[in-house]
Parts: sequence; C-alpha cells; structure tokens
Amino acid sequence: MAFQRLVRFQAPEHARYGDLLSETAEGYLVQPLVGSIASGFQRSSEDGILVPSLLCPVAETPIIICVGLNYQQHAQEAKVAPFFPFSLVYALTPFKLTVPPYPVIFTKPGTALAGPHDPVHVHPSAQSMLDYEGELTFITARDAKNLPEDFDLADYILGYTAGNDVSARNFQLPEASGGQFCYAKSFDTFAPIGPAIVSPAVILDPQKLRYMVRVNGEIRQETGTDDMIWSVRQILRHITQGTTVKAGTVVMTGTPSGVGFFQKRFLSHGDTVEVEVEGVAKLVSTVEFES
Amino acid sequence: MAFQRLVRFQAPEHARYGDLLSETAEGYLVQPLVGSIASGFQRSSEDGILVPSLLCPVAETPIIICVGLNYQQHAQEAKVAPFFPFSLVYALTPFKLTVPPYPVIFTKPGTALAGPHDPVHVHPSAQSMLDYEGELTFITARDAKNLPEDFDLADYILGYTAGNDVSARNFQLPEASGGQFCYAKSFDTFAPIGPAIVSPAVILDPQKLRYMVRVNGEIRQETGTDDMIWSVRQILRHITQGTTVKAGTVVMTGTPSGVGFFQKRFLSHGDTVEVEVEGVAKLVSTVEFES
Repeated sequence: MAFQRLVRFQAPEHARYGDLLSETAEGYLVQPLVGSIASGFQRSSEDGILVPSLLCPVAETPIIICVGLNYQQHAQEAKVAPFFPFSLVYALTPFKLTVPPYPVIFTKPGTALAGPHDPVHVHPSAQSMLDYEGELTFITARDAKNLPEDFDLADYILGYTAGNDVSARNFQLPEASGGQFCYAKSFDTFAPIGPAIVSPAVILDPQKLRYMVRVNGEIRQETGTDDMIWSVRQILRHITQGTTVKAGTVVMTGTPSGVGFFQKRFLSHGDTVEVEVEGVAKLVSTVEFES
Repeated sequence: MAFQRLVRFQAPEHARYGDLLSETAEGYLVQPLVGSIASGFQRSSEDGILVPSLLCPVAETPIIICVGLNYQQHAQEAKVAPFFPFSLVYALTPFKLTVPPYPVIFTKPGTALAGPHDPVHVHPSAQSMLDYEGELTFITARDAKNLPEDFDLADYILGYTAGNDVSARNFQLPEASGGQFCYAKSFDTFAPIGPAIVSPAVILDPQKLRYMVRVNGEIRQETGTDDMIWSVRQILRHITQGTTVKAGTVVMTGTPSGVGFFQKRFLSHGDTVEVEVEGVAKLVSTVEFES
C-alpha cells in the first residue's frame, strides 16, 4: 500500500483518497492517491493538495464488527454495576471474574459509519442515556476466511484509526432489548471513525498504543492497548473462522473503563467527544440531538 | 413490481431475476424479468424458461436483521431453560413472564446469505450444538428511515419468503460469548432463504400465515404468525427509527417454539431442514459438516 495515513477528501468532481502529509492551521495537506481498497492504492503524479476538511476515510463498509468487554479494567467496572448487560454474564459465576472464552461480538450496519467532521446525529428515542466508547479501530485490507494462527497481520490490515462506538444505553439495558447490543448502537452516524487510517507499516505493534477519550476536554477514558484481553490478531482470526470478513470491514476492538454509564454521566446536545489514539488519530465528534 | 414470486436463476451469461410461474418434475418455469430491487422489475418480452434450479432470490443483502423471542410460545419455552440466553432476561424478573418492551434485535452479515439449493456449510468449531430456527422472512423494497406509524407496508416490502436462522448454540450460550448472539449466527451460509420472494400483492396479511419446520421429515416447529409478539409492521417501523434500513435488507422475524436446543436434539451432517411457510415458500436445506 502506497500510503502511510489514508484519508478521503472532497475533490471538485468526486470524493478521492489521499495520503495525509501534514495538518496545518490552513487545513490538511494531502497527496492524492489513485485506486481503491480492492485494487490497492498508488500515488498519483499530482502535487499535494490543501483541503479544508476530510471525509470518512472509507466510503462505505460491508459491516462494522465490534468487540465488547475487551479491557481488563472495563471488565472490572462492568462486574460491579448491577444492571449493565455484562453483569448478567457474571451473574452466572458470582464468585470470580470470568471473562468469556471467546470475544464478545456484536455489529453495527454500514449505515452507522460517520466521518471525522460529521456530527453524531441522535434520534429523539436515543437521547436519554447516550454514551461514548472510545476504541482502537482497524479496517481490513482484503477478504479473509479461516485465517490460520500464523497469518501475516500486516497483509490483512489496511490500517488503524480512532473510533467511537456511540451507544444509546436506554436500548442496551437487558430489560429493554433482551440483552442484545445491536439496536442500541446501530443508529445512523453512531460509528464515527478517522480522520486517517494509519498503515501497519507505521504501526508495527497495535498492542503498544496509548489512547484517551475526552468529553468537552475532560479525560474520561485512558488506557494502553496492552490491557486488551483479545489482541487485534486474535480478534481478526476469531471473526474469520467459518465466516468471510470482507475487505473494508471496520472492526472496533472494545472500550476500556470510564464510559459514562457507570458514572451516570450521559452525553448532551453540543457535547464534543474526542478519541485520541496516540500517533494514530484524534477523532473529535460533536453530539447533535434531533428534534 | 411486476412479479408475484420473485426468483433468481443462472442464465448462460449471468444470473437473472424471474417470476416463478410453476414448479414441475422437470424444474421451475420462470418468466424472465429485467430490472433490480433498486429500479424495480419489468417483465421481459421473452417466453417462459424452464430452469433446473434456483439461486438465492437476492444476489446480495446489505445486512440480515433478526428478531429474537418473538413468539409467545417460544418465550414460554425459553423461560424454563436455565442456561439459554433468553433466560437471563427473565432472571431479572423471576416472578412473571416479561417480554422486553422493544423487539430483541441482532444481525447476521450479508455473507451469511445462502440460496434454496445451497447446503448449510458448518465450520468444525460450530458443529457441536447446531440448531435451526424457521422464520417468516421479508426483504425490504426501498431505503427506509423513520417510518411513521401509518406507513404503507406494501410500499416498503419487496416480499415474503422462508428463512432459517441457523445457530451454533455452543457460541450463543452466555458463558461462551457474553450473551451476544451475532457470532453464533454469522457463519457463511447460516442464513438460507427462498426459494421465491412472494409479493405483498399476494400476501395481503403477513400475520395470517401458518408455517412449520421439519427435520428429516419430522415436524419440530409449527405455528401461525398471529402468535408473533411484534408484527412485521412493528418490526420494520422499529428498526428504521434513526437508522437507515437499505433496500434489499433481509429481515428474519423470529422463531416459534420447538428449536432443537430445548430438546437437546442438535443437527448432524446430512440432516435436512425444511421451513415451509404455507402459500409462500418451502425452503429445504441440507447440513454439511466441514472437516
């Protein structure tokens, strides 16, 4: 892949891919690329272009696959909250903290995807307990099925970015939706990612990243990806067993402790949520309640 | 829509859509159609064609949306089984049977789709507790968001068919996957549908259908869709609130009592599962364990 930091931007005719060279007060300096996820990318012969804003770094995605309960600290936090769905898992094994033997998997549809400058639009029904989940996010580079244990991670990962698994907790409560997470997290724009997708040639070890989430500037989540229960490699291998994971699939790898739910501090209209994965991406999203 | 029973078949050059005129010992008599779900269908000027087999009635789907716990009888069945995920919902309200106030929603990816003559391929990891769920299934005709209470159902539904929500219960148990259903149901070919998609012009009331599921000829599930807790109309309206449901989305509306799990009778290699929705479709799938 001929990029380090893959972005998309609006050109006069149509949206284009580019390699993000630098960010200045004037905008984003981008080297235009030709190609696609399916065919791979090449540098075009054009000079760099200064653009005022960036689009979602992928035009569309087949599906967004999410991992729940993937940080030791978040697992501890979930255990002690009596009405959070995860606590049901532990209700079966009340005397020790047992992490399920497989990653906890749920999905968002492709229509939930949003770009780094898009607001999170919140339907009236989803506003009462709106929450963030900052997550290290990766995008797959090619179709994958039955990956073996020693597969080449860099071959299957287009790159890494920041993502926010926006969640309407009022629909996630087990007494609301039978314990299934999908509906609460599937609203349009509930999966902002970006701004750039950083190549695995730049991020050699995704388990050695630090990231933090700020709400209106205040730090709420802060962790290292070395606290992940299931690594990027383990997650990708697991979801491809017997199942074709198509190129361009967005995978959100789980959130650490510090979500709003356990502090009973939910998001309001106008709030900004910033997910910063150090050296990778800083994603800032503004919450817009619809009337 | 210029069809009553939409099917797809393999023509010499490429797959085509058709209207199923009749089924004989020699094959399927099909009136070829031109068009697509997006543009609508028109009868072509060709004569009817006799084809030996049918493809999946849609070429692809953006996502498969499934409803859990949607039959009163199945809800009763789930309540008394101590380790079934649904029972966790009831663990919170042990003294009465409470159905959640919203439909229980989970998903399968588009890659799980299979046609009426495709075997259900079962990855080795998914074979130990393999189960069927026969379901009335509908396909959406156009993009939909925020449908109002009085929306025109026939305008948004391409048609109805039979579907099998194939489930690897070993991954669905809450102690395995944290109670989330998606992984257990997302394997390639775990969503066979067909053979035909029957127009809402033919099926005037989807809540007055009878259907049954047979395993190797033995009836295991039998119900009327009047036992559904959430109607087709209510399901479609619910999933479009704040969320764009794209044209061609496959929706499986939930299964009645009689799944294998509660009888501890799981599917084996070579078993046939037949989901017959009277007047709509008879879907016969053969189970093939992979080695």
